[in-house]
Amino acid sequence: MTAFMDKDFLLSTPAARRLFHESAEDCPIIDYHCHLSPKEIWEDVRYDNITQVWLGGDHYKWRLMRCAGVDEKYITGDAGDYEKFCKWAEVLGKAIGNPLYHWSHLELQRFFGWHGALSAKTADEVWKVTGEKLHEAGFSARGLIMKSNVEIICTTDDPVDSLEYHEKLAADASFPVTVLPAWRPDKAMNIEKAAWKDYIAQLERVSDMTIPSFEALKVALVHRMDFFAAHGCTLSDHALNYVMDAPASEEAVEAIMRKRLAGHPVSAPEEAQFKYAFMTFVAGEYARRGWAMQLHYGCRRDNNHTMFARLGPDTGYDCIDNYAPSAQTAAFLGALEQAGSLPRTILYSLNPNDNQAIDTICGCFQSSEAVSKIQHGSAWWFNDHFQGMTDQLTSLANLGYLAGFVGMLTDSRSFLSYPRHEYFRRILCRLLGEWVEDGRFPEDYELLGEIVRGISYGNAKRYFAFKTK
Amino acid sequence: MTAFMDKDFLLSTPAARRLFHESAEDCPIIDYHCHLSPKEIWEDVRYDNITQVWLGGDHYKWRLMRCAGVDEKYITGDAGDYEKFCKWAEVLGKAIGNPLYHWSHLELQRFFGWHGALSAKTADEVWKVTGEKLHEAGFSARGLIMKSNVEIICTTDDPVDSLEYHEKLAADASFPVTVLPAWRPDKAMNIEKAAWKDYIAQLERVSDMTIPSFEALKVALVHRMDFFAAHGCTLSDHALNYVMDAPASEEAVEAIMRKRLAGHPVSAPEEAQFKYAFMTFVAGEYARRGWAMQLHYGCRRDNNHTMFARLGPDTGYDCIDNYAPSAQTAAFLGALEQAGSLPRTILYSLNPNDNQAIDTICGCFQSSEAVSKIQHGSAWWFNDHFQGMTDQLTSLANLGYLAGFVGMLTDSRSFLSYPRHEYFRRILCRLLGEWVEDGRFPEDYELLGEIVRGISYGNAKRYFAFKTK
Amino acid sequence: MTAFMDKDFLLSTPAARRLFHESAEDCPIIDYHCHLSPKEIWEDVRYDNITQVWLGGDHYKWRLMRCAGVDEKYITGDAGDYEKFCKWAEVLGKAIGNPLYHWSHLELQRFFGWHGALSAKTADEVWKVTGEKLHEAGFSARGLIMKSNVEIICTTDDPVDSLEYHEKLAADASFPVTVLPAWRPDKAMNIEKAAWKDYIAQLERVSDMTIPSFEALKVALVHRMDFFAAHGCTLSDHALNYVMDAPASEEAVEAIMRKRLAGHPVSAPEEAQFKYAFMTFVAGEYARRGWAMQLHYGCRRDNNHTMFARLGPDTGYDCIDNYAPSAQTAAFLGALEQAGSLPRTILYSLNPNDNQAIDTICGCFQSSEAVSKIQHGSAWWFNDHFQGMTDQLTSLANLGYLAGFVGMLTDSRSFLSYPRHEYFRRILCRLLGEWVEDGRFPEDYELLGEIVRGISYGNAKRYFAFKTK
Repeated sequence: MTAFMDKDFLLSTPAARRLFHESAEDCPIIDYHCHLSPKEIWEDVRYDNITQVWLGGDHYKWRLMRCAGVDEKYITGDAGDYEKFCKWAEVLGKAIGNPLYHWSHLELQRFFGWHGALSAKTADEVWKVTGEKLHEAGFSARGLIMKSNVEIICTTDDPVDSLEYHEKLAADASFPVTVLPAWRPDKAMNIEKAAWKDYIAQLERVSDMTIPSFEALKVALVHRMDFFAAHGCTLSDHALNYVMDAPASEEAVEAIMRKRLAGHPVSAPEEAQFKYAFMTFVAGEYARRGWAMQLHYGCRRDNNHTMFARLGPDTGYDCIDNYAPSAQTAAFLGALEQAGSLPRTILYSLNPNDNQAIDTICGCFQSSEAVSKIQHGSAWWFNDHFQGMTDQLTSLANLGYLAGFVGMLTDSRSFLSYPRHEYFRRILCRLLGEWVEDGRFPEDYELLGEIVRGISYGNAKRYFAFKTK
Repeated sequence: MTAFMDKDFLLSTPAARRLFHESAEDCPIIDYHCHLSPKEIWEDVRYDNITQVWLGGDHYKWRLMRCAGVDEKYITGDAGDYEKFCKWAEVLGKAIGNPLYHWSHLELQRFFGWHGALSAKTADEVWKVTGEKLHEAGFSARGLIMKSNVEIICTTDDPVDSLEYHEKLAADASFPVTVLPAWRPDKAMNIEKAAWKDYIAQLERVSDMTIPSFEALKVALVHRMDFFAAHGCTLSDHALNYVMDAPASEEAVEAIMRKRLAGHPVSAPEEAQFKYAFMTFVAGEYARRGWAMQLHYGCRRDNNHTMFARLGPDTGYDCIDNYAPSAQTAAFLGALEQAGSLPRTILYSLNPNDNQAIDTICGCFQSSEAVSKIQHGSAWWFNDHFQGMTDQLTSLANLGYLAGFVGMLTDSRSFLSYPRHEYFRRILCRLLGEWVEDGRFPEDYELLGEIVRGISYGNAKRYFAFKTK
Repeated sequence: MTAFMDKDFLLSTPAARRLFHESAEDCPIIDYHCHLSPKEIWEDVRYDNITQVWLGGDHYKWRLMRCAGVDEKYITGDAGDYEKFCKWAEVLGKAIGNPLYHWSHLELQRFFGWHGALSAKTADEVWKVTGEKLHEAGFSARGLIMKSNVEIICTTDDPVDSLEYHEKLAADASFPVTVLPAWRPDKAMNIEKAAWKDYIAQLERVSDMTIPSFEALKVALVHRMDFFAAHGCTLSDHALNYVMDAPASEEAVEAIMRKRLAGHPVSAPEEAQFKYAFMTFVAGEYARRGWAMQLHYGCRRDNNHTMFARLGPDTGYDCIDNYAPSAQTAAFLGALEQAGSLPRTILYSLNPNDNQAIDTICGCFQSSEAVSKIQHGSAWWFNDHFQGMTDQLTSLANLGYLAGFVGMLTDSRSFLSYPRHEYFRRILCRLLGEWVEDGRFPEDYELLGEIVRGISYGNAKRYFAFKTK
């Protein structure tokens, strides 16, 4: 019997314990993909109670409460913070096997020093302990980041963003953490959306030019990329339904854009062609600038129309879309490679069945520009748990070069999510430890430590070529 | 070395043993989905020998024998019962890793008190032991059910069924088990089948009305649902190729139905539209009545034409169909939800790759009407083994709320299949036990016991709202 | 802590150790599918150094080096053999979890008696040890084969091949190993390829007939099959994108062939129809002759256009294609079965997600002609590792009859690859051993030994009905 979530949590072998405690535990965090608000970091926000931190905007937790049959009143509704927390404690207490169980307890341990098990019975105690701590110094946004040994944070930013808070943070010598923007131009690409025209108008304003054509759109994007680059951006991110292969002539793409600007809807094939042209263009720019390109795909969003009308997007109503043809992904990357336009690329699918296909696609486009230039991204969102991370790591090890992996990110909106890096590192060390204990790899801690430190920290630092403060 | 299939079979940790023996083992069985014949229960059928029980109609066993190269003569042919049993014993004896190995031995242990290993060598002994027992009192259909601590059975029934035997069983105070009908209207929906028109004629007779339109079909179905409800039905079941998203206007659906009634075949898109309209309608009725809706999909049936001509359907010639777009499933449920027509729903795919997508779809449509209103059904048919059940439970725990799961069913045609509930409970306790022993969940047997009893018994009882005798 | 890759490598239980050492280890190898050159066997080629053996043509190793960011110069470029080896040693030394790590070390142990761990540090030592050994007697192609206890080898041969070296090898009494041709008519089927017409011209020459029609193509293929049969061939192999279901009339197929012979391209549907007709025809011939049919599918080849232009096919730029509808596979086999044209068939998909669907398809078409007439092929290519083999074996055991499995093959171009059979057998014995130790199967070594020997050797020998020297 292993004690519940103690210092050797998930470290099932002596090798795992040694690897984690000697090589992983103390590595700084490079959180190269998250959804933190640079404004909130700048303003150094604070929270009154644990409900605000935990349940204020976390659709993972909302979703679990709904699965347990909790009324929406206690989730996003008008119940009081204490009542909401009690409902959450009751649900979480029985959520065996759910990653939220581990994330939440790691957060209680690391930030609040509380080592019990949260449930209906202990809700009051936790409410009190966390409530007191949250009013201490060091429990502001910046304090939580500093406590977590974070070196670099990349937020997720729209091309039209002013990057005002990134500028302020960069200029603030009192805060040692590097906060960089990451380029996420989804709104510019999503030509099928009702709001696209308005977005283009916004882009026209910040770029100080008109955008009557795809050619002009490209010019505007280049301006904005220059602006982002000047603020230290070396990383982009895209949400796609799936990676498409829909080449079309320049004329055809211009015609699609004109049609849409004239207020007409575009057909599904036209949408694919436009997006393909968009992605091909930005990928080439990324390659030229040495930026990395993250492709997140395989999600079907906003499935519950009633709740979408009430709460909007990103509120816990998305699911895995199991349509993602690997042939199209390979064709897209192949076309970029042939054109000399293939940047460092990280592929993330929300469907865990895509693991092996992704790893074999990565293997087709490597080069000596970087160790593992094409990466299989860390287990994402619905896969961000013990099983999902173990599967992603195993597939990558089987089919690629695990030692070159850039590792974990939080993808989070919360300042308390950094222990997910610890969770990942524990799972990594457990897996490697099991292989070593099983005689599948030599017990060479120098070599193993180098691999673990690389995946925990060094690989990302080298791969993304971030400039720190 | 753990002893072969002893009382602690599959219970690999002290925690698992404690959970199973203290919380799971004694729970009554609610078998909410099976294919038992109510007539046979009423008539309290008996069997002359083990071949009749085991090999009389069990296509799982037939299939394994065919894989082992056994001649059809010894499977469904004219060989004698003893010869058939000897062939089966020889094949099973070497069927390492197949769930039939465990199911068969659990049946030999629980019903016949025989604890050896069946093989060519022990065939004679088992033939004799089982032959004697089968002639004892308590080895009739009802006796076997009673021995198994069954509280509720739901059979699978066609809308045109008279439910005669359900009535008789309900009225029989000497039999304490509740036997309820479950509504399975596949024949009414499958407009593409040659026999559909004849079926509609049958439905006209039992409903005492003509059915010249889809509107009339709906009226007839409502009549029959009322009839089923009066017999305690609270549960429906559907076999779909996949969950479709093919909305069409009322006029279009009426036109498709008229075309088919006039003797013309319908196209594939028309078939999808008709079925979508059918499913949308019945789902709304289920929601109104508080019935649950089971959707079974991902099967391609009757693949061997020669054997179909000889033996008919359900004889061991079906396979997993790997086409089941999660986007369409989400769209279908989304449309029902928006219309206020979404009943309690259980999704079962025959393709184990769909596990994660299903769990994320479920998470989009939960509500406070029920704990886990939308359920990921128990590992089904080809997945009903150690690995398949472990995978389904793990996926559900990772992505949903395992503690709310309604658990196991037999889906069986045999009165000896109840130990599959025991098998499931052992696998559940093993999994939870491993997590506890690994420090991933506290060793709190009160909480764990509550979870285990819920999944083994209480959740199904609450979710389906059965009325027992 | 288990020692690194010692004699009990991967044998995690006493049962596994006993099974491997008593029943598996000494079985001869039947390598029924590989890409060895019969000419090189006849000529008994030798190698100057380990780079030539290992890195001369092994795209698995090239691929791993590219993933690690090694410059192509050190992979397929003009760097010296020693430099290339040093780069390889450095990469392999950190390739934890990759099957090449185990394969390479098994080769170093079995052929060169070296039991260390290859890395940058030990590269020199290994270069020296292997260099010396390679110049000893017994390190020629035939020597390596003999050392490996190989009984039968099937190469992969084109219908137009003269089989000259097979004839010579068959006549050479000094070499006890049986080397047989296997029939791989991909070039005759791939009507969409630019080179197809030239290939048909070649086939005309070796068949001494004109081939103006599909009817004539069939006659030519029958001639060549007779020729292959006369050289002991009992086995065919096909690389398909996926198993198709595209029936067309004879006239339509003839029209497609005429169109293509006239120099016109064929459409995608025409290509599918032609290939379907081709496959249906050859399958019938295989059935008539008692040949087995291997179908390999699920690969997207030559994804990197730049490198294809430079290095050609089979150089490490292929990936898993995740499009393989099980419905079409079932329909194809169903049509063959109905026509009495279904040969012994082995299905291999490159997508590991297809495991369960394949096993259920196999189960639909078994017969008493052979034990497991329709087989789920051994974990192939990208799946040929601990996890992939364990998954394939588990799926087969769950859904079929593992004891009837024909087992492992190398699929290799290298004379050093035979330890992959040992690797497979260790994984098999580990899995069975775990089940036995877990009480899931009786500890009956007579029965278990029979199963292990069958899968390691006997089943393939019986299934393929090879005639040995």
